[in-house]
Amino acid sequence: MAEFTTSLRVRYCECDPMGVAHHGSFPAWLEEARTEMLRGQGRTYAQMEADGLFLVVTKLELQYRRPARYDDVLDIRVKLASTTRVKLVHEYAVILKERSLTENSPSATGDVLVTGSTTLACVGRDGKLTPLPEWLQG
Amino acid sequence: MAEFTTSLRVRYCECDPMGVAHHGSFPAWLEEARTEMLRGQGRTYAQMEADGLFLVVTKLELQYRRPARYDDVLDIRVKLASTTRVKLVHEYAVILKERSLTENSPSATGDVLVTGSTTLACVGRDGKLTPLPEWLQG
Amino acid sequence: MAEFTTSLRVRYCECDPMGVAHHGSFPAWLEEARTEMLRGQGRTYAQMEADGLFLVVTKLELQYRRPARYDDVLDIRVKLASTTRVKLVHEYAVILKERSLTENSPSATGDVLVTGSTTLACVGRDGKLTPLPEWLQG
Amino acid sequence: MAEFTTSLRVRYCECDPMGVAHHGSFPAWLEEARTEMLRGQGRTYAQMEADGLFLVVTKLELQYRRPARYDDVLDIRVKLASTTRVKLVHEYAVILKERSLTENSPSATGDVLVTGSTTLACVGRDGKLTPLPEWLQG
Repeated sequence: MAEFTTSLRVRYCECDPMGVAHHGSFPAWLEEARTEMLRGQGRTYAQMEADGLFLVVTKLELQYRRPARYDDVLDIRVKLASTTRVKLVHEYAVILKERSLTENSPSATGDVLVTGSTTLACVGRDGKLTPLPEWLQG
Repeated sequence: MAEFTTSLRVRYCECDPMGVAHHGSFPAWLEEARTEMLRGQGRTYAQMEADGLFLVVTKLELQYRRPARYDDVLDIRVKLASTTRVKLVHEYAVILKERSLTENSPSATGDVLVTGSTTLACVGRDGKLTPLPEWLQG
Repeated sequence: MAEFTTSLRVRYCECDPMGVAHHGSFPAWLEEARTEMLRGQGRTYAQMEADGLFLVVTKLELQYRRPARYDDVLDIRVKLASTTRVKLVHEYAVILKERSLTENSPSATGDVLVTGSTTLACVGRDGKLTPLPEWLQG
Repeated sequence: MAEFTTSLRVRYCECDPMGVAHHGSFPAWLEEARTEMLRGQGRTYAQMEADGLFLVVTKLELQYRRPARYDDVLDIRVKLASTTRVKLVHEYAVILKERSLTENSPSATGDVLVTGSTTLACVGRDGKLTPLPEWLQG
C-alpha cells in the first residue's frame, strides 16, 4: 500500500525543558500526516466530518528512539497497514529530514527518530461504529 | 466585585527549552480560573454550552513579569472587572504560590508572575451575539 | 507494587471538535500521574533533573475505550509494573470519576476510559543511559 | 519595515469543542511567524539560543475578530513595529488564506481573523536583560 510523507518543523512550544520535542507532541504530527495523506487522495477529513463520519483513535503506540530538537525539520511517513470494515491501522516513521543545528546533534539526517502505529474506528454522529466509506477501505 | 483563586501546578509539557512555562501556556490557565469561578457560583460552563450559550474570547492581554517554572504551584486570581449586556471583562494575576525548587529560583513565593485580562462575548449556537444570562451580568 | 491515583479535570483546550478529550491530551495526564506518584514517595522529578538525572519516554501505548468529555473529572491510576537497572515500566488506567454533565453521557462514573503503559529510560546530562537511583528501582 | 508572511494549516488538536481554533492556539502561530521571519533574514532563533541569547515574551495582545476553523489555511503576517536596545515589538495579522470547507463558513478568504502584538526582551543565559544583536535592531 502506498506510503505518504509530510514534512513539518518542530515548534518551540512543542519542546520541553530537556530541549527536545516532548513525547506528547507526536500524536498531533501523526494526525497531520494522516490528514495530508487523505488530502493527497483528493479527500479531506474536514469533509468527512461534515458528512457525518468521524475517525476516532482507539489505539496509539509510539517507540521513541532518538530525540527531535527544536527547529528540526521532520518527515512524517505514514502508510495504511490494514483495514477492516470499520477500522484503519496506520504505521508511521518519523525521520530527521533537516537539522536546525548540526553542532552537538544527537542525531543525523535520515535517522529514524520515532516509529508508531494508530488504530482508527469509524463512527457516526451518534458515536456508534459505522462502516468506512468504500474509498477508505483500500 | 468578588475575586476567585484557583491553584494549579505547572506541567512538564507546558514548559519550553528555557525551562520555564511557555508564554502560550497561560491562556488555558486563565480559562481554568474562569471555569472554576463559575463553578464556585454554582454554575458550570459545560451546562451553559449545553443550554446553547457560548462564551468566546474576543480579546486577550498578558504581561509577563517573571517566569513560572516546571512543577511550581501557581495561584490564578481572577475577578470580573466589568460587564455589558453581551460582554464580560476579567482581570487576572498569576501568583507564585509554592516553588518546586528553591535553589536558583528567579522568583519568590508571593511574587506576581503575570497579569492579564480577557474579554468574552456571549454568542448563541448560530455564532451571533446574544445577551448574557442575568446571573452572569454581575 | 503500590498503585497511585491522581485526579484532574479535563480542560476546554484539551478537547477537540468532537467535544471530547483529544487523544493527544492523555500523555500529559499520564506524566502528571507519574510526577505525583513520585511526590507521594517524598521525591520530585524536578529535583531529579536538578541532580542531573532525566527520565525519557522510550515507549508509549494507549488504548482508548470511551471518550472523556470537557469538564469531566478523571482519576489517573498509575502503578510501577516492572523495572530494570535503567528502565521503568508504568501501567495506567484512566477512570471517569465525575461527569460534568450526565445528560447524553456516553460513559458512567467508574468506567475505565483509557488504559496504557509507558517505558522510561534514565539518562544523564549527556543523554546516555545511566542507572536509576536505588530508591526508584522499586 | 518589511512584513513577512508565513502560512500554516489549523490542526485538529488546535481546535476546541466549538469547532474552531482555540484562542490559546494563536501564540504558537505568532511565534512560528517570528521564527520564519528571522530565517528569511538568514538567521535562526535556534542559533541565537546556542549563542546564549534568548528572546522572552514580556507582553502579548490578541484581538479575535472571526474564528479560524479546522483545516483552514492561515497567513500569519508579522512586522517589526519598533525596537529599543533590548526589546522588539512585533505586530501581527492572521488572514484566512484558504477555507477547508466553504459551506456555512463564518469567514471569507482574505478576512482578517485576528490581530495582535508581542513585546520580546533579549536576555542572556543568566536571565538578565542584554542588548539585542545589532542585526536585530532593525
